[in-house]
Amino acid sequence: MSFEGPACPLPINDYPTVTLGHGGGGRLMHALIRDLFVAAFDNETLRRMGDGALLDLDAGTLAFSTDGFVIDPIEFPGGNIGSLAVHGTVNDVAMCGARPVALSAGFILEEGLPMETLWRVACAMGDAAREAAVPIVTGDTKVVGHGKGDGVFIHTSGVGVRLPGADIAPERARPGDFVLLNGPIADHGIAILSVREGLEFETAIESDSACLAGLVEGMIEAGGEGVRVLRDPTRGGVASTLNEIAEQAGVGIELDERAIPLREEVRGACEILGLDPLYVANEGKCLAIVDAAVADSVVRVMRSHPLGRESVVVGRVVEDAQSTVLLRSSIGGTRIVDVASGEQLPRIC
Amino acid sequence: MSFEGPACPLPINDYPTVTLGHGGGGRLMHALIRDLFVAAFDNETLRRMGDGALLDLDAGTLAFSTDGFVIDPIEFPGGNIGSLAVHGTVNDVAMCGARPVALSAGFILEEGLPMETLWRVACAMGDAAREAAVPIVTGDTKVVGHGKGDGVFIHTSGVGVRLPGADIAPERARPGDFVLLNGPIADHGIAILSVREGLEFETAIESDSACLAGLVEGMIEAGGEGVRVLRDPTRGGVASTLNEIAEQAGVGIELDERAIPLREEVRGACEILGLDPLYVANEGKCLAIVDAAVADSVVRVMRSHPLGRESVVVGRVVEDAQSTVLLRSSIGGTRIVDVASGEQLPRIC
Repeated sequence: MSFEGPACPLPINDYPTVTLGHGGGGRLMHALIRDLFVAAFDNETLRRMGDGALLDLDAGTLAFSTDGFVIDPIEFPGGNIGSLAVHGTVNDVAMCGARPVALSAGFILEEGLPMETLWRVACAMGDAAREAAVPIVTGDTKVVGHGKGDGVFIHTSGVGVRLPGADIAPERARPGDFVLLNGPIADHGIAILSVREGLEFETAIESDSACLAGLVEGMIEAGGEGVRVLRDPTRGGVASTLNEIAEQAGVGIELDERAIPLREEVRGACEILGLDPLYVANEGKCLAIVDAAVADSVVRVMRSHPLGRESVVVGRVVEDAQSTVLLRSSIGGTRIVDVASGEQLPRIC
Repeated sequence: MSFEGPACPLPINDYPTVTLGHGGGGRLMHALIRDLFVAAFDNETLRRMGDGALLDLDAGTLAFSTDGFVIDPIEFPGGNIGSLAVHGTVNDVAMCGARPVALSAGFILEEGLPMETLWRVACAMGDAAREAAVPIVTGDTKVVGHGKGDGVFIHTSGVGVRLPGADIAPERARPGDFVLLNGPIADHGIAILSVREGLEFETAIESDSACLAGLVEGMIEAGGEGVRVLRDPTRGGVASTLNEIAEQAGVGIELDERAIPLREEVRGACEILGLDPLYVANEGKCLAIVDAAVADSVVRVMRSHPLGRESVVVGRVVEDAQSTVLLRSSIGGTRIVDVASGEQLPRIC
């Protein structure tokens, strides 16, 4: 079939085919998105590259986001692909500074999937949607032959209405701002990996998968426009998310390692598995970059929310034309926290 | 893992696992959606079971829809999975009586997919989106290992704003209404199947995949609230779509076989393949149920649109508590056009 369009801007000689790394949340994935998808779809809203898009309609500003879920295993401590698919997209809409109002759900099922498994997944989705008060209002179901899929893949999309007073955009981060985090990192990735690797710990490690919309609403009520950036550090973890923000805003970020909450058992698992927790996926965490003037009141509101009890200031934004993310370690040194290149943990979400 | 939720309402003894038929657009798929997904997600908007959902927000009424694409082969005469994914969801939003304003795109890529293929798919999406004037504003990319997917799967979701004067709902169909169709049926399904089966015809059969939003906008301008139901007969074809409408509205539908446009080469291919064209998928067709009083003016407007040149009245709505769809054949007899049970043509979209 002849193709008369423009040549692919991605360096095809380096990567003639898609690799697992293209889905890992790191440098490779961003090159694929920027050089292939954004180039082909070319429009102003998409180029902003947020967790979702803000649409200015005559009637008001709408947030719109989508997320795909291919997690393996489908069921894990703390949830399953269904609850994760609700939380993930609700959170992406919330990170636009919006109140999520409705979800869609698209399923790609593999022939032979036990109907009982699908029922548990659907029930978890329904429960998560009701708990978040965001109904699943439309959907689609496709089935592929055995060996052409893997159990259940789900895409959820969400729409939301912008919260009064919200003005969230990565480029709003500026030197002097504080970086806030609502609790311990790396729980989700380690929970999944523990199941996959058959690791057993004294305390079971559960995914932190949760709906952050309520937490975010409180933060914006408290901090108003002083809340400048919101992101949930999923694939690629805190490290990748902060690097993206630093690059989009043209600033540096300094993190204080001692301040970053990390459960003892998760720290241990990361050591056993040779993983840096800063790169491990979270599904119930929110990174916020806020004006120093509102940081105290925002942290106070976060701590009053069940999902924010351990909220802390983990770093600050600094001037740096190189957009470096720097970690001041607990033993006094500093190291650069770079973007991961490819796949650290495949199919973690 | 113990599950303490309600028992699955789907008769699991009959279908302990998902089968290809559960994705085919027929009776099995509807049982899965109704008894499993709608039961688990339980909310009023979803129970309406349209091509999309209408959301009443403070700011206005929004249409929201999603569709998954697993078509095999990825590239086919008349398009590829990318253009299809744009047309499919834009059309679902249009069938809500809305003007589509934005799309999301979620990709599940299989490791090893040639990057050039993905580029062609993305370019076709970008072109289709620009042609439809509906930008792809947000997206997501996941990669699964070789043998855990099949090239490219795509979910697109769309949001739209309700057109002035539109009041579209399947239950609005009433006896005396006319059934309109904008052109020949079964092109898409036969184009795909021809490639798969290696069939060659004198004239290449191309998919009818196209954006129907402009056509629909003209129809609603011309017919206002007299346009009662709009549906695009994709998976399961005209037969399944009309059966769904008949059931939701509690009416019967009588079709006139001689009136239904069908290309000679498509008729021939259907005969060779043993397929009833009424059950074959379309991707650029619109079925409209309109008040008899506006039928003439709506058909006139349809015929003035490039995608509606062959628009015709193909049947009418009648009283029938059994919600039967009846076909008056070209040789004078009548037969019941039932819902297909399972999969007629797997992975046709």
